[in-house]
Amino acid sequence: MTTQPTAAILLIGDELLSGRTKDANLSCLALKLGSIGIEIKEARVVPDEEDEIAAAVNGLHVKCDYVFTTGGIGPTHDDITADSIAKAFGVSIGIREDARAILEAHYPTGELNCSRLRMARIPEGAELILNPVSKAPGFRLENVYVLPGIPLLVEVMVDGLLERLQGGAVALTHSIAAFVPESHVAPGLEAIQNDLPQVRIGSYPFLRDGKAGANLVCRSTDEAALDAAAARIRALIASLGAKVEAEERT
Amino acid sequence: MTTQPTAAILLIGDELLSGRTKDANLSCLALKLGSIGIEIKEARVVPDEEDEIAAAVNGLHVKCDYVFTTGGIGPTHDDITADSIAKAFGVSIGIREDARAILEAHYPTGELNCSRLRMARIPEGAELILNPVSKAPGFRLENVYVLPGIPLLVEVMVDGLLERLQGGAVALTHSIAAFVPESHVAPGLEAIQNDLPQVRIGSYPFLRDGKAGANLVCRSTDEAALDAAAARIRALIASLGAKVEAEERT
Repeated sequence: MTTQPTAAILLIGDELLSGRTKDANLSCLALKLGSIGIEIKEARVVPDEEDEIAAAVNGLHVKCDYVFTTGGIGPTHDDITADSIAKAFGVSIGIREDARAILEAHYPTGELNCSRLRMARIPEGAELILNPVSKAPGFRLENVYVLPGIPLLVEVMVDGLLERLQGGAVALTHSIAAFVPESHVAPGLEAIQNDLPQVRIGSYPFLRDGKAGANLVCRSTDEAALDAAAARIRALIASLGAKVEAEERT
Repeated sequence: MTTQPTAAILLIGDELLSGRTKDANLSCLALKLGSIGIEIKEARVVPDEEDEIAAAVNGLHVKCDYVFTTGGIGPTHDDITADSIAKAFGVSIGIREDARAILEAHYPTGELNCSRLRMARIPEGAELILNPVSKAPGFRLENVYVLPGIPLLVEVMVDGLLERLQGGAVALTHSIAAFVPESHVAPGLEAIQNDLPQVRIGSYPFLRDGKAGANLVCRSTDEAALDAAAARIRALIASLGAKVEAEERT
């Protein structure tokens, strides 16, 4: 199988763990990074606590080629991501002049108050990640990319990063939906999986209009193997007397 | 501050990490567990890989009072959660007669095929968690509660569990929204946070009709302190010449 660089996503924020806010960033990052062949190996959600953030960063940045964090780089007291990253790497943190200059150019004269200046605090040795919308930058320290929590900003900032990242072979996904109970399709599906180890095959059940069905999802960087898996799944569905309800390759 | 038992959520499934599916279970579990005073300390998303699942379970079950997993207990080859949990705890796994009996009673005679029987494979020493909808049970092994991935099933199965879990003091949330830029409210908000350490205060910016605002969210098990924080935030907003746009306690 062609190798792919790996990434971990670290979602930071009490509001995600209280259930108050549903995360929208994991899926966005996974699709965008996936489009250049970076595979997400793990995601974590941690509270706004320095030790928890630092411990997660320390664990993930050695495990994966890239780590992307979201949340906690705004102007309020609960925005502690930059300090936590500095702590994780054992480096100092302070106001960076290039980050301050970006904020000074953005706000009307006299409006760069102490709270906003907090957003220019960058760990030593980090590189800024530009924010074309609200200007307050993210940063990269070693293989850790630190982004804000607002989904619109994550989307544009990761778009800006994509050409600087080392991607890999892009995995394609082929989904086939049919009204077949998972348990009927299971033995045949397992045989296909065993014959085609370079394809990852998943089965996701659904209930629609009272009828049980499954989305059979194949994912691989090997397009010929993906075609072969899809063909065999179509034949499997037909052999069970059912028909393909929907099919999609992305 | 009153102590609360802690929980970790482990979401299992390739489809969450590929970005194809957005998780709906973390928020549901957080709200339901929060309602009996169990605090979520961390969530992780891992792929359908035995070593990854086992490693995450091993890390989380010593860190938190409870672990809840979702996903990977269906009838297909990619459903490997039960085996991974058995591996994590170093116990054997096989068909359990009480689980088989539940499935036998549910399916028409002759329809409990090998794939469905896979759902009766339960690690040694585990206790079944009943599934009133589609019958295939989850299980508890030590402090790890293993649930399916389908949100409807997670919801009813955790409802059935709540009275068996040891809860704690329930944290209430008080949210106040106003059209104040975060940076204007930040110094006052930090002072309130410093004066009331038993309340966790978060600030979540939004942009509506082109105007910057913030949701100021207080969370505490101490209702008097929560009232005090809310009163001070209302006064802070008024002192900035703004008004409260929305206010909610849950």
